[in-house]
Amino acid sequence: MNKIRLFVDHTLGEAQSVPLNKDQAHYIFSVMRKSVGETISIFDGNNGEWEASIEEISKKSGVLFCIKQTKPQIMPPDLWLFFCPLKKVRTDFIVEKATELGVARIIPVQTEHTNVDRIKLSRLSAHAIEAAEQCGGTYIPKIEELQKIKEVLENFPPNRRLLFCDEKLQASEVNLENLKKGKWAILVGPEGGFSEVERNHLKGLKFTFSISLGPRILRADTAAVTAISLWQNYLGDW
Amino acid sequence: MNKIRLFVDHTLGEAQSVPLNKDQAHYIFSVMRKSVGETISIFDGNNGEWEASIEEISKKSGVLFCIKQTKPQIMPPDLWLFFCPLKKVRTDFIVEKATELGVARIIPVQTEHTNVDRIKLSRLSAHAIEAAEQCGGTYIPKIEELQKIKEVLENFPPNRRLLFCDEKLQASEVNLENLKKGKWAILVGPEGGFSEVERNHLKGLKFTFSISLGPRILRADTAAVTAISLWQNYLGDW
Repeated sequence: MNKIRLFVDHTLGEAQSVPLNKDQAHYIFSVMRKSVGETISIFDGNNGEWEASIEEISKKSGVLFCIKQTKPQIMPPDLWLFFCPLKKVRTDFIVEKATELGVARIIPVQTEHTNVDRIKLSRLSAHAIEAAEQCGGTYIPKIEELQKIKEVLENFPPNRRLLFCDEKLQASEVNLENLKKGKWAILVGPEGGFSEVERNHLKGLKFTFSISLGPRILRADTAAVTAISLWQNYLGDW
Repeated sequence: MNKIRLFVDHTLGEAQSVPLNKDQAHYIFSVMRKSVGETISIFDGNNGEWEASIEEISKKSGVLFCIKQTKPQIMPPDLWLFFCPLKKVRTDFIVEKATELGVARIIPVQTEHTNVDRIKLSRLSAHAIEAAEQCGGTYIPKIEELQKIKEVLENFPPNRRLLFCDEKLQASEVNLENLKKGKWAILVGPEGGFSEVERNHLKGLKFTFSISLGPRILRADTAAVTAISLWQNYLGDW
């Protein structure tokens, strides 16, 4: 249960040696007090989970050795999440929950009513990694730089559909169970909602499907978790 | 958008005067710098939302006057949430999200693997109130004292069904869309999961319906939000 589980930025495989960076070595040696010969679990985001033995360890560096694969690589469905960054804690929360629930890619977007104009990618990635480490995941969603909603929609990839969580909608315009599985993206708005211009633009796009998330107003972070849950239930791998 | 919206512990109605406590007066007067004659929104959890004018205000006290009802009372479905308290922030989070998503009652429960042995009811209630204030809700879920799971199950009310989020289950044993609407409760386990004894006991009860929340391990707070979302989608008022 409390076994150490770490993401490592190194391709794992049979008989691979894996160097540790300073933070990882400090955590394993100084915090968790592990020593040479003990084993931990590691994953690289692409090659499943491996049991690895500690070959060398000190406060500042260390080397692991891959013994055997303990879990196959499990990829999430091809789902992207577009969300508008909120206050720090709530943005971290969205990244954590999206990682747990299984999305492939996370793209922060800027809209008219988004108050945040930059994000700290390293901070968000760290949250995604921690969520995967804690929850037994083997995949880390790709997190992209902040993009403008206009550009996102202009460059929207063909063959991908967009589930638009429209907070002004009384009832969903589509029934989730009637939608086709495949490449999807979810778009959740900012705290202040979308502007009328943005909303009309979104609703006019042929790849957009609008849904309501119930009669109560949800905070943007709640809407993200709820939308991913429903999507996974109907269109994902649950 | 940024209008003040406050929960008051006083029955609201036509032409009612509403005394403010010290914290509310401080917030309206010192923080938001409102003065006599201005209006704010208030709700009492039972009688909808009211527009109220400020009749008296100072740093320490004040009086409001109900002008007109601006929103009817909206009750959540008859859904209870049983959850095992986690670390502070995650417990706060569950209460906030359950309030937004619409549950009637929140009951913290202690299981074999629950590390928390007391909760601070006033703190949790404050979070529920804040969530309702922020999200336009008119109802505050009742939050109960921490109870032992054994006693909860022994005294489980007749005619209420229990949706058991079983993290060990590969696939749901029931299809949510085939379940009957009515009085329900959701049970989400602690971080360490349920013990085998608890799990077997739960599964043997005739009012229990077991579901899986997908192939990934979810943190307990994520599981709560996901379970409420799915329940609302199939059995609630969405």
